[in-house]
Amino acid sequence: MQVILLAAGQSTRLAPLEDKNLLQFSGKTLIEYQVAALKQAKLRDIVVVANKFNLKKIASALKGYKNVAVTEQKDLAEGMKGGVLAGAKVVSHKNILVMSTNDIFDVKLFEDLIHASKQKDVDGVMAGKKVNTYFPGGYLKISNKGFLTDIIEKPGAGKEPSHLVNLVCHIYNDFPKFCKYLKDVKSKKDDKYEVALDTYIKKGKAHLLVHPYKGEWRAIKYPWHIISLMHHFLETQTQLTKGKPKIDRSAKIAQSAIIEGNVIIEKNVQVLHNAVIKGPAYIGEDCVIANNALIRESMIGKNCVIGYCTEVARSYINHDVWMHSNYLGDSIIDYNVSLGSGTVLGNLRFDEKTVKVYVKKERIDTGMQKLGAIIGAGARFGINSSTNPGVKIGKDCFIGGGVLVDRDIPDGQLVLLDNKLKIIYNHSPVSIQNRSEIKKKLRK
Amino acid sequence: MQVILLAAGQSTRLAPLEDKNLLQFSGKTLIEYQVAALKQAKLRDIVVVANKFNLKKIASALKGYKNVAVTEQKDLAEGMKGGVLAGAKVVSHKNILVMSTNDIFDVKLFEDLIHASKQKDVDGVMAGKKVNTYFPGGYLKISNKGFLTDIIEKPGAGKEPSHLVNLVCHIYNDFPKFCKYLKDVKSKKDDKYEVALDTYIKKGKAHLLVHPYKGEWRAIKYPWHIISLMHHFLETQTQLTKGKPKIDRSAKIAQSAIIEGNVIIEKNVQVLHNAVIKGPAYIGEDCVIANNALIRESMIGKNCVIGYCTEVARSYINHDVWMHSNYLGDSIIDYNVSLGSGTVLGNLRFDEKTVKVYVKKERIDTGMQKLGAIIGAGARFGINSSTNPGVKIGKDCFIGGGVLVDRDIPDGQLVLLDNKLKIIYNHSPVSIQNRSEIKKKLRK
Amino acid sequence: MQVILLAAGQSTRLAPLEDKNLLQFSGKTLIEYQVAALKQAKLRDIVVVANKFNLKKIASALKGYKNVAVTEQKDLAEGMKGGVLAGAKVVSHKNILVMSTNDIFDVKLFEDLIHASKQKDVDGVMAGKKVNTYFPGGYLKISNKGFLTDIIEKPGAGKEPSHLVNLVCHIYNDFPKFCKYLKDVKSKKDDKYEVALDTYIKKGKAHLLVHPYKGEWRAIKYPWHIISLMHHFLETQTQLTKGKPKIDRSAKIAQSAIIEGNVIIEKNVQVLHNAVIKGPAYIGEDCVIANNALIRESMIGKNCVIGYCTEVARSYINHDVWMHSNYLGDSIIDYNVSLGSGTVLGNLRFDEKTVKVYVKKERIDTGMQKLGAIIGAGARFGINSSTNPGVKIGKDCFIGGGVLVDRDIPDGQLVLLDNKLKIIYNHSPVSIQNRSEIKKKLRK
Repeated sequence: MQVILLAAGQSTRLAPLEDKNLLQFSGKTLIEYQVAALKQAKLRDIVVVANKFNLKKIASALKGYKNVAVTEQKDLAEGMKGGVLAGAKVVSHKNILVMSTNDIFDVKLFEDLIHASKQKDVDGVMAGKKVNTYFPGGYLKISNKGFLTDIIEKPGAGKEPSHLVNLVCHIYNDFPKFCKYLKDVKSKKDDKYEVALDTYIKKGKAHLLVHPYKGEWRAIKYPWHIISLMHHFLETQTQLTKGKPKIDRSAKIAQSAIIEGNVIIEKNVQVLHNAVIKGPAYIGEDCVIANNALIRESMIGKNCVIGYCTEVARSYINHDVWMHSNYLGDSIIDYNVSLGSGTVLGNLRFDEKTVKVYVKKERIDTGMQKLGAIIGAGARFGINSSTNPGVKIGKDCFIGGGVLVDRDIPDGQLVLLDNKLKIIYNHSPVSIQNRSEIKKKLRK
Repeated sequence: MQVILLAAGQSTRLAPLEDKNLLQFSGKTLIEYQVAALKQAKLRDIVVVANKFNLKKIASALKGYKNVAVTEQKDLAEGMKGGVLAGAKVVSHKNILVMSTNDIFDVKLFEDLIHASKQKDVDGVMAGKKVNTYFPGGYLKISNKGFLTDIIEKPGAGKEPSHLVNLVCHIYNDFPKFCKYLKDVKSKKDDKYEVALDTYIKKGKAHLLVHPYKGEWRAIKYPWHIISLMHHFLETQTQLTKGKPKIDRSAKIAQSAIIEGNVIIEKNVQVLHNAVIKGPAYIGEDCVIANNALIRESMIGKNCVIGYCTEVARSYINHDVWMHSNYLGDSIIDYNVSLGSGTVLGNLRFDEKTVKVYVKKERIDTGMQKLGAIIGAGARFGINSSTNPGVKIGKDCFIGGGVLVDRDIPDGQLVLLDNKLKIIYNHSPVSIQNRSEIKKKLRK
Repeated sequence: MQVILLAAGQSTRLAPLEDKNLLQFSGKTLIEYQVAALKQAKLRDIVVVANKFNLKKIASALKGYKNVAVTEQKDLAEGMKGGVLAGAKVVSHKNILVMSTNDIFDVKLFEDLIHASKQKDVDGVMAGKKVNTYFPGGYLKISNKGFLTDIIEKPGAGKEPSHLVNLVCHIYNDFPKFCKYLKDVKSKKDDKYEVALDTYIKKGKAHLLVHPYKGEWRAIKYPWHIISLMHHFLETQTQLTKGKPKIDRSAKIAQSAIIEGNVIIEKNVQVLHNAVIKGPAYIGEDCVIANNALIRESMIGKNCVIGYCTEVARSYINHDVWMHSNYLGDSIIDYNVSLGSGTVLGNLRFDEKTVKVYVKKERIDTGMQKLGAIIGAGARFGINSSTNPGVKIGKDCFIGGGVLVDRDIPDGQLVLLDNKLKIIYNHSPVSIQNRSEIKKKLRK
């Protein structure tokens, strides 16, 4: 069996974050984790479908993996249909697993699907996630024998035809046949792949078995999903650390620094006096963790400076980020970002309700009690600036000193205080004699 | 002898703080301290006069004390007169000590008054505080033999008839007789009790001995008095600690934490890495004192979080208060309050003069060189907000991120920056190449 | 040989900093360093020319030095001419070295100049600094034999007549003769001394040898030069410390404090828990370095408080400065200054270019990637205030809480936020019940 791994989606809903496939977790890109999981399920022959923006980087990230081809989806407007057909040009087998890098599954799901696909009279297998509360996806209607009879997109709460939501993890035993239907689909909406599936089972009489799945599923659709993903990979990291700090020999750790639990510290990291790293945590190569800093439940990319008296809690920090006397909790910071001294990313509403975020003009409840800021690559924050919970800062933005960011900021903006100051004559200067007297009084 | 302990006053001048009787010091309510002090002077039979708001809570706080009855003053508009008469319904003896929970005295004063009241031809005894500078209270004019001849309310500086100020700590040897005069008083002002006293000595020919008192007297009239009271009880606490930390067995103290001097740490407290608690200090049950926090000369109520890099100096913190990277000095925070990261309560004027506070539209000099904020229950502060010295924040107020509070805020307000931002195109984004070059230059 | 050391310049370009001669480095005034350097070169007989403002203080600073006279330049409008002639009244020798306290040289330069001045047929010697890039000073045109033929003031880049810039370090073998020319100069510009030199070589046929100098030269013209000077003296300090902390016996250092490298700690200093002082650094008498403070590559004058969680990096702090939870990098703070808690002095531009500063309406590129604020004596900063890189704050200014200072502030100003707040009814107070539920959720 071969795999077509779709990685050409442009994830505009993830903005201002850049390509998810290349985000690193514990030092490995997401695409590597996906490939490794497939390999673990003995799916050794993989075609990754990339786009013109991430092709080279994905190829570079995967160059150590055997039997992995990276191909380009040229017509990005064709969406998932385009991706599958781009992969189809490269694969040679009839048995094909189609999946996307938008989702994280248990390795066992792949094994179970392969097993199910080997049954008699089965043309393919689909994963159906068992859900208890309504999820705005495609619901799978099935026959008594468990075969797909229909897909109902976003039926609305209470109108679900089953408890099974379509996951893009599909095995086709006769992939070329499915591709014929796929090529013929004409639809103006972004549902060509689903329409092809529908035609395949209805006109093509294909028997697609639905495999009910109760395991882990993490979709990466919205930027705040990166935090949940980070927590997932921090847990996974325990396999390496066994719950104890794993510190590269070249790292320099001050004697007064405290490092506890499931922590990985990479090459050339410096941890200065009285810094505390409380696992789970990951510290990338060449980072400086300065005096009194506190890092907990967080990932720090390579070449970062977590400055004096900075606390990073439950946050994902990409590479080349500089901080100094900041607090950030439950936040996501892309690469090449600086936070000025005293800048704070707020992560809890006054009314202590869940944080809402605007994505493409839609206000979405993240379900998170605590969520800080989501900051694009190249951003700079001045000193003593602040962001409200759930705010998104575009790429290459500069946020002026003292600014409170209370809204999303598009890419490439300069945001300054409209600073009005009253400057008047000072009638009560304080002499140094006063000072000595005050000091005496205060000592009493 | 029985005691009528007046605790029904509504202390509107204490706003935004709630009932003083229930404020805890070193884990004990103020009312308990008062009762315990009376018991120590062998005044074992006590009637506490409460109001409809604090009755149940006072009864609950005192349920472990024998021979203590709690009764309600129904007509609160009647003030002290109403309180004394409410107590009169419950007491049975003729000898009665009347005092109020507004004042803290030495135990010895009670003993001395009892002793004095046993002299021949004495109908009662009153405590007269010896003052050297003018105090805006009732001055006691006395005869050669030391009997009260008149009370002059607020005579004005230089016009004092004596050096003795009336303290509400009065023994009546024939209390029912005094009550007759008290019942008959008609006055539209809040001076019925004093008028009754006047009539009692003039028409009733009562011989009320004035006992001059030079000991400790702490009135709790204004909110900032809570700080002075706290310092008093921190000193008292030394009896328990003998100047060395007294830490409950269930508390978890990090090895790198430092706890010095007269410090009490209650059950289940956690003190995290590199935190410092410098006595005198009291830390209530279930508190978390986080990394690098510094607490000195302060009391922290139960269930508080004193977060990362927070300094609390000379401050009174009630229960369920959350802080994070704050500085507060000489401040009072009631229960259920949060301070966002970076929020600071200013406690020193630029001109380094004493701090003034508005109480009921009157600007009062607190006499304190350093005084921070006085914060009511239920308040929330955003990140990087600030308060000027001596500011009062009402109950259930939300103070927005970045706000500088430069005035008193009434209860239940939402205070936001009228935030004007200039958002323009950023002409000078900084590439990651720049960053590496800068890093090189900075290293030179 | 005698020396005339010019110290009467009023250094208006150094504003808001006060007289440079009296600034202390590692506990010694600049004027002392100058005198000591001359003495080291066996120039033992020195006349310091002061002005009416610094005369007494300079005399007092130098009272321990033998053969040092301090005289006053009365007519300050006469500039350098006036200074030299004021010195001329006091000196008695014919051989005179003229130099100014505006410059720091290697001791060897003096020795070399003295040696050169002893050659035959030489009327004097001048130091010419070898420069590789254009410097806006006076360029020395020389003959084949190395004698001065002309001085070209600020020729412009590319038009330099040589690589040698005139340094005020001139030996006259017949000083009285030069003085005659100097007295006769009539010029309305501030170049009378240079005009006299020109006349002396052209009309007076004086043979002034130019001594090319490749050693250290630090001019103190602009306030940011104090930082460079500080780094110079911190290096010099190694002679005393040999790279190891030199701590006065009377200093009290907490066991958890860390002091590393070339550090001098003077009398009665207190270093509290978990503070870190990383050499090179100098801490003056009676300072308190509070909990968690970090000081590196900085000088702190006597009687300062570097408060809780404050970082001072590469900064010059004069005496009686109080800080609390601040960050300052690459900054200069004159005496009697306070920074409120949370105040930050920004030191890096968003675009990470070199910092520019206005001096007398001219915008000057400091060439420094990082430069914080320059703060005059008597200034007070409120809480959570901020300054942009390169800003100058005048003497006796008060900067209100929360203010972002984005421009230079003249002496004696009060700068306040033009604070507009929206104060509205709070519709969503948070009960203490909510709080417990949230706490439970957050713990999950």
